[in-house]
Amino acid sequence: MLDYEKLIRDVYDWPKPGIDFKDITTVINNPDALCQSVKDLADHFRGQGITKVMGAEARGFIFGAPVAIELGAGFIPCRKPGKLPWKTYSESYELEYGTDSLEIHMDSATPDDKILLVDDLIATGGTAVAEARLAMKTGASVAGMGFLLSLDYLNPMRKVRQELGDIDVFSLVHVTEGSEE
Amino acid sequence: MLDYEKLIRDVYDWPKPGIDFKDITTVINNPDALCQSVKDLADHFRGQGITKVMGAEARGFIFGAPVAIELGAGFIPCRKPGKLPWKTYSESYELEYGTDSLEIHMDSATPDDKILLVDDLIATGGTAVAEARLAMKTGASVAGMGFLLSLDYLNPMRKVRQELGDIDVFSLVHVTEGSEE
Repeated sequence: MLDYEKLIRDVYDWPKPGIDFKDITTVINNPDALCQSVKDLADHFRGQGITKVMGAEARGFIFGAPVAIELGAGFIPCRKPGKLPWKTYSESYELEYGTDSLEIHMDSATPDDKILLVDDLIATGGTAVAEARLAMKTGASVAGMGFLLSLDYLNPMRKVRQELGDIDVFSLVHVTEGSEE
Repeated sequence: MLDYEKLIRDVYDWPKPGIDFKDITTVINNPDALCQSVKDLADHFRGQGITKVMGAEARGFIFGAPVAIELGAGFIPCRKPGKLPWKTYSESYELEYGTDSLEIHMDSATPDDKILLVDDLIATGGTAVAEARLAMKTGASVAGMGFLLSLDYLNPMRKVRQELGDIDVFSLVHVTEGSEE
């Protein structure tokens, strides 16, 4: 497997002092790393009958759409409120201060679909859980979640297990030490 | 070529009365259309030595990243102000009321790069011209622009030719009649 961790750029004190931000634009700027990361994510979930891949605005689109193509699936954009023009399901999730919401089109999946969630990053797990709940509102099942990067030191798996039970969560890079999100 | 036009959903009176919004989520939800549209866009520009594909937040990421993979190129995300963590170039463009800006990382391309711009839609051409100017700030050349959908009735090519001269602009669907943007 490619050494994705070496390609990630650490940006210190961004977006505020004390934060060590993991910049993945340096990964996707590299043709081999972009292509291989999508393939590695898809390979982990291949052969499981996944029919739809869901990714959250905006960086989730960068990995989600190509993973969908690699798996022969359709792509579901999960967007901020007011961005989707048709009837939507909405799901709120907690941020450090306050709450935020995500939406999907109601007709973006059916109970026959098996959905894979793909994003660049899992941090506290809040967004991922909200995405899974949105996916399940369509009646579809959630087959798993794939990420380029997991901030393990924020313990996302605790939240995922608590809220969603036993679900396959796969990340290409695990960061075990860092500043708070 | 697939009949993409049939897959696009018309949402009337969105985001405001009198607008006929072209919803492309129904295209990308279809596995064949998602895969084929990316291939058709890439095929048009294949063999031209494109090294980077640039897409604008957020829907441009959905087509841009897979086209980059298909062409063996890297991907440059073009984002709203304040979203990129590293040093950026910025370019403003006019909206119906007021202005907006887009940014790219300064080190996302070099003078050796040939950049293809990819987006879901070209309307007045304002965003596309801003993206091209951003790309050229790195010293790279712009090889062309690819879109799923061109709102020809808004005459985007007039603006593109005026501002950028003779550049290859390719769209899979041409909409010749419609409401104002």
